[in-house]
Amino acid sequence: MTTEQLVAQIYKKKSFLCIGLDTDLEKVPSHLLEEEDPIFAFNKAIIDATHDICVSYKPNIAFYEAYGIKGWQALEKTIRYLNENFPEQFTIADAKRGDIGNTSTRYAKAFLEDLQFDSVTIAPYMGKDSVEPFLAFKDKHTILLALTSNVGAFDFQTKLVDGKELYKTVLETSKSYENSENLMYVVGATKAEYLKEIRQIVPDSFLLVPGVGAQGGSLKDVCENGMNDKVGLLINSSRGIIYASAESDFADAARHKALELQRQMAELL
Amino acid sequence: MTTEQLVAQIYKKKSFLCIGLDTDLEKVPSHLLEEEDPIFAFNKAIIDATHDICVSYKPNIAFYEAYGIKGWQALEKTIRYLNENFPEQFTIADAKRGDIGNTSTRYAKAFLEDLQFDSVTIAPYMGKDSVEPFLAFKDKHTILLALTSNVGAFDFQTKLVDGKELYKTVLETSKSYENSENLMYVVGATKAEYLKEIRQIVPDSFLLVPGVGAQGGSLKDVCENGMNDKVGLLINSSRGIIYASAESDFADAARHKALELQRQMAELL
Repeated sequence: MTTEQLVAQIYKKKSFLCIGLDTDLEKVPSHLLEEEDPIFAFNKAIIDATHDICVSYKPNIAFYEAYGIKGWQALEKTIRYLNENFPEQFTIADAKRGDIGNTSTRYAKAFLEDLQFDSVTIAPYMGKDSVEPFLAFKDKHTILLALTSNVGAFDFQTKLVDGKELYKTVLETSKSYENSENLMYVVGATKAEYLKEIRQIVPDSFLLVPGVGAQGGSLKDVCENGMNDKVGLLINSSRGIIYASAESDFADAARHKALELQRQMAELL
Repeated sequence: MTTEQLVAQIYKKKSFLCIGLDTDLEKVPSHLLEEEDPIFAFNKAIIDATHDICVSYKPNIAFYEAYGIKGWQALEKTIRYLNENFPEQFTIADAKRGDIGNTSTRYAKAFLEDLQFDSVTIAPYMGKDSVEPFLAFKDKHTILLALTSNVGAFDFQTKLVDGKELYKTVLETSKSYENSENLMYVVGATKAEYLKEIRQIVPDSFLLVPGVGAQGGSLKDVCENGMNDKVGLLINSSRGIIYASAESDFADAARHKALELQRQMAELL
């Protein structure tokens, strides 16, 4: 999917909502556990109930890997279901990978080519040759961790490198990578005050913003500081939407929560 | 496996060799492609031919993920084969994961509990709460990326943070993490000159050193600068051993290459 197609979807749906599929068998409604593939059954119900009010789905790969082969089968079924039925959705493999060149090429192939995700999240620590294999895929997107929303973000990301926070060095350095037009960035909503400075470094890039809702960030603050003339924001919510109810009405409850966010987004667009 | 058990194996075998199982179907001997599971068939042959002269195996998870469910099945078979037949081997899931706390807990469960690896490699960018879920597993080890052997290492890892390279800040900060006694570190052999300084920060920790051989580092330099009184080194070689021959003699050729390294190690111990 091109960035232009994503922007068009955002204006069409008046939504820049990304729903995180952090599917956990200990949290899904118990009646689903009788299904042959409860993870996929849950995801399908969430997708069917929300696809018209969000523009993106983000399976968190750890939750699938934790179930071994069954988890991978559920992941494959989920991305196939999305690509076949809702190809207008921007799909994100939240994998946070990153390794030396020939290894990153493997991960890129797995997520962008075989599973056909539109994008994958990547950790920057190993630098240029760990990121560029992902950037090489045309009309695919590499979402680089810049400033994350967890407490550990202060261990290294905000440390000063030549008088400037490390995450800013990551943003600036990554702009020199080959095919850097395919970059997006993860910026946690708990640090909305930093978004203005981030926008000075990457004015045109899309930012994937987790941490609205469950982790405490404010949607209005994020938009005021982070929106650009092509919106440039994907706001992710995972647990706040998909676990809105643990009963048989879970999909309706998820839609209700997603709709609350989408209505706020429509006003902010 | 405890660190003491690993050290005992090193002295018993006069080897601190780790063999990287970066198994690539485009590089394995063509006669193996007729097998039901060529990845496992290749790994089993390599393991059978080398287990008495190495102390560790390190499957590079990207190579398995690239083959989807078949890759995961091959990974499961490989680790089960190792744990059932060669429980004295220190097994490393080279996954380079790292995410917010509840997600890292998932990855930790997948690799350390379900697959029963002895250790997993982790990227430090997201800090404390992304690393500690791995450290919580008793007698398991978290191998944190410090200074990697690729060119991208110079993008961020060697940048000065308060006058000190970022990788040194990673080493120092990680020592304050809960259960930090379960930490080991990745330090590339292409930077052997840095090992002396690294040893001042983490005198007692094991270092996993890639980049001897194919990536150009010298075993002697690494030992002179990086060995401690409990050896404290695992030297990884992947392609240089497992792809020594692409013919039917591949396992013998791998043993021959591994033996060359093991003999050098015996002299250096």
